[in-house]
Amino acid sequence: MPSASPSQTPPPVHATAAILSVGDELSLGQTTNTNSRWLAERLTSLGIITVEHVTVPDDEPALVAALLRLGSIAQLVIVTGGLGPTLDDLTRQALAQAMGDSLVEDPLALEQVEAWFTSRGRVMPALNKVQALRPTRAISLQNLHGTAPGLYAVLAGADCFCLPGPPREMHPMFDAAVVPRLKPPPGRTVATRVLHTIGIGESDLATRLGPMMKREGDEGVLVGTTASGGVVSVRLRYEGPLAPYDADHLLEKHMREVRVRAGAYVFGTADDTLPAVVLKLLHDRTQRVGTVESCTGGLAASMLTDTAGSSNAFAGGLITYSNLLKQQLAGVDPAIFAPEGPGAVSRECALAMAQGGLERLQTEHCLAITGIAGPGGAVPASGTRPGKPVGTVYIARASRQTEGGRVSTDVRHFTMNGDRHAVRDWSAKSALAMLRLHLIGAEELKLLRQAD
Amino acid sequence: MPSASPSQTPPPVHATAAILSVGDELSLGQTTNTNSRWLAERLTSLGIITVEHVTVPDDEPALVAALLRLGSIAQLVIVTGGLGPTLDDLTRQALAQAMGDSLVEDPLALEQVEAWFTSRGRVMPALNKVQALRPTRAISLQNLHGTAPGLYAVLAGADCFCLPGPPREMHPMFDAAVVPRLKPPPGRTVATRVLHTIGIGESDLATRLGPMMKREGDEGVLVGTTASGGVVSVRLRYEGPLAPYDADHLLEKHMREVRVRAGAYVFGTADDTLPAVVLKLLHDRTQRVGTVESCTGGLAASMLTDTAGSSNAFAGGLITYSNLLKQQLAGVDPAIFAPEGPGAVSRECALAMAQGGLERLQTEHCLAITGIAGPGGAVPASGTRPGKPVGTVYIARASRQTEGGRVSTDVRHFTMNGDRHAVRDWSAKSALAMLRLHLIGAEELKLLRQAD
Repeated sequence: MPSASPSQTPPPVHATAAILSVGDELSLGQTTNTNSRWLAERLTSLGIITVEHVTVPDDEPALVAALLRLGSIAQLVIVTGGLGPTLDDLTRQALAQAMGDSLVEDPLALEQVEAWFTSRGRVMPALNKVQALRPTRAISLQNLHGTAPGLYAVLAGADCFCLPGPPREMHPMFDAAVVPRLKPPPGRTVATRVLHTIGIGESDLATRLGPMMKREGDEGVLVGTTASGGVVSVRLRYEGPLAPYDADHLLEKHMREVRVRAGAYVFGTADDTLPAVVLKLLHDRTQRVGTVESCTGGLAASMLTDTAGSSNAFAGGLITYSNLLKQQLAGVDPAIFAPEGPGAVSRECALAMAQGGLERLQTEHCLAITGIAGPGGAVPASGTRPGKPVGTVYIARASRQTEGGRVSTDVRHFTMNGDRHAVRDWSAKSALAMLRLHLIGAEELKLLRQAD
Repeated sequence: MPSASPSQTPPPVHATAAILSVGDELSLGQTTNTNSRWLAERLTSLGIITVEHVTVPDDEPALVAALLRLGSIAQLVIVTGGLGPTLDDLTRQALAQAMGDSLVEDPLALEQVEAWFTSRGRVMPALNKVQALRPTRAISLQNLHGTAPGLYAVLAGADCFCLPGPPREMHPMFDAAVVPRLKPPPGRTVATRVLHTIGIGESDLATRLGPMMKREGDEGVLVGTTASGGVVSVRLRYEGPLAPYDADHLLEKHMREVRVRAGAYVFGTADDTLPAVVLKLLHDRTQRVGTVESCTGGLAASMLTDTAGSSNAFAGGLITYSNLLKQQLAGVDPAIFAPEGPGAVSRECALAMAQGGLERLQTEHCLAITGIAGPGGAVPASGTRPGKPVGTVYIARASRQTEGGRVSTDVRHFTMNGDRHAVRDWSAKSALAMLRLHLIGAEELKLLRQAD
């Protein structure tokens, strides 16, 4: 029911933003909100400061109140969620109500929703028709990755974008339909850089960076570290009056300083991932790697193959979860598993797996991982020896030397901590880190959690 | 500067809660907010409904405004963050200002902060003294896991608890100091259930559930669906006057109704995951599965082995990324890759991979996946044929029949959409879903995105 009609004039600039997330699953704590952070990070990098994040349940009055309030405190409001086809999806109605507007069917949006189903050989369920509704003064935004179109409207003097909740639909729509319409404030430059490290802990890295990390920054450059999934990233941020070119120049200078202080632990910048960097190092040398995995059960191979173009540098792998398969597939000597042998979780076994894989996968390099991921169920029955607690992992690398065909090897013993998932993740990444250190000639570096 | 003095009478009951998170690192998107979800989940389970989550930066006026507004819309306000010793920690001041109160040093709190340092053989830095400040009408809450004491006060007629930001300090303080002071509404029970499905789309599922999903609920039970990573979950929620036992009984009745309507697509409840359910079905039959993966490169195996105890039902796998390894490791007939053959991405190749794996991995079941994950780099050079776009995936299952040793097979052709990551994820899950359907005798069911 349209009532008041707030300002329909769009703001001249987007200095501030507010992010509104919609959904019972978020407000009741059933799901972690990842959209909100993603959006704030993108906005910050574009020079727009997020002043408030709000999450409300699937409740129309709460949604309308939040829209109006956020539209009055920020120049840009980004809403995620509540655009689905079901009755608990209320963003369309709430936006219309907050705008003092009513809903109308958008013929082009309907066509696009229908086309989405048709292109997948399906007929659009009648339910999805409501997704083509929009306030009369709003614009529908095409969704190339799902059925829910987005919406753009002026709300209470702010520019308001409503995007679908699923990240794989929301992210591309933000890039395609929101970013081109953003108006970051002129005369203020925000520039950021990021460097990624692997194999060094956050506090050791902070110690190396020393005075670069002081709270007030150095030459206006703030430096911070964040750790995520074993990768410790160094974030540099400039916000001030410098022209963009000069700000970039300043940040590059500080980047060089970080590289000097952090050394070979730095593996990349921006969107670089460890697997992509390793694959590129291999590709540049026209070499390939294979994997032989026990406790990681395919995770290291999966990390490599999740990167586009991995077939240039990854040939294949063996998952030798049982000791029998370690022998049959990778050719590990059965004596290793004998009562007096070192067992499946040992330096000897890791090395034999890597050497066997090198031969059978016919690659220049092979990485092998064997360990105890916990919480107990995955301990190979005949491979457990006293003194091998959960988190004990041996990782081996074997490489064919380009000259003479000799095989060079490196085996390391790690003591991982955390749950099964963490031990596996860290093991797979440490294997990739070992290969990287070998390829760049920095094999002397010790990796985090390496015992010997 | 104390000004107005809002109501100092605590609410008789906590029917509703609001959660306020404080910190630039959250508002600017540098860190994911996990506290908010944790608190909402705990409150929901205690019968208290979270009506709004808010995140504000380290900004005193914004913090004061949020405190006053949330105190007026909810009976319970939980604040996290901003209690540290540095200048950007503003929760103490903001609370005092919102209460129309001033700050005073709490001698007991100071003693506890000092003791925290002493017990670690350190002297309290002068900076930390401010952490013992509290509004005169507030109570300090002891922090056993860090230096920041919490605060409790009545604010705008609501009970307000301020807790430290680090989860390992916040969680125990919530349990020790907040939970005993909570007043969930008597005579109101909140109970929730969740069922997970795989292989059916969200709108098709909603159509099957039909009237169960009506907005006002059925017998007080609200039913909603959420999709995450291909798994569509049905969430049931009861909130009302029934005794907990009766509410559980009612939800179980509705759970049965969902199971009837959604059929064999339902694979589990609560914390069940698809890999864990498949492993349990195998374990119950003392059978094991192996994998032969091309485009998923170890992802299906990795999903299985990420589950504790997987070694009981998973033996190992082959990652046959190159066509040469498909032949050498899995025994695929080279004729398949010949110019006139069906190629690496074909029904024939998937079937040969599954049959070869069954033999070489010596398991009762084998799953094989071959396809084009995109964006192009991973297309096997000799396996691409016209008419096989990115997202074309063939998945095969081969199983040894318990009687007679005969091999039963199932091959399906899928048309996946999304990026490389999505195609791989969906492919691995579809393979597990195919094995599950076979094990429960529902192999006739078609899976989402299955072309034929």
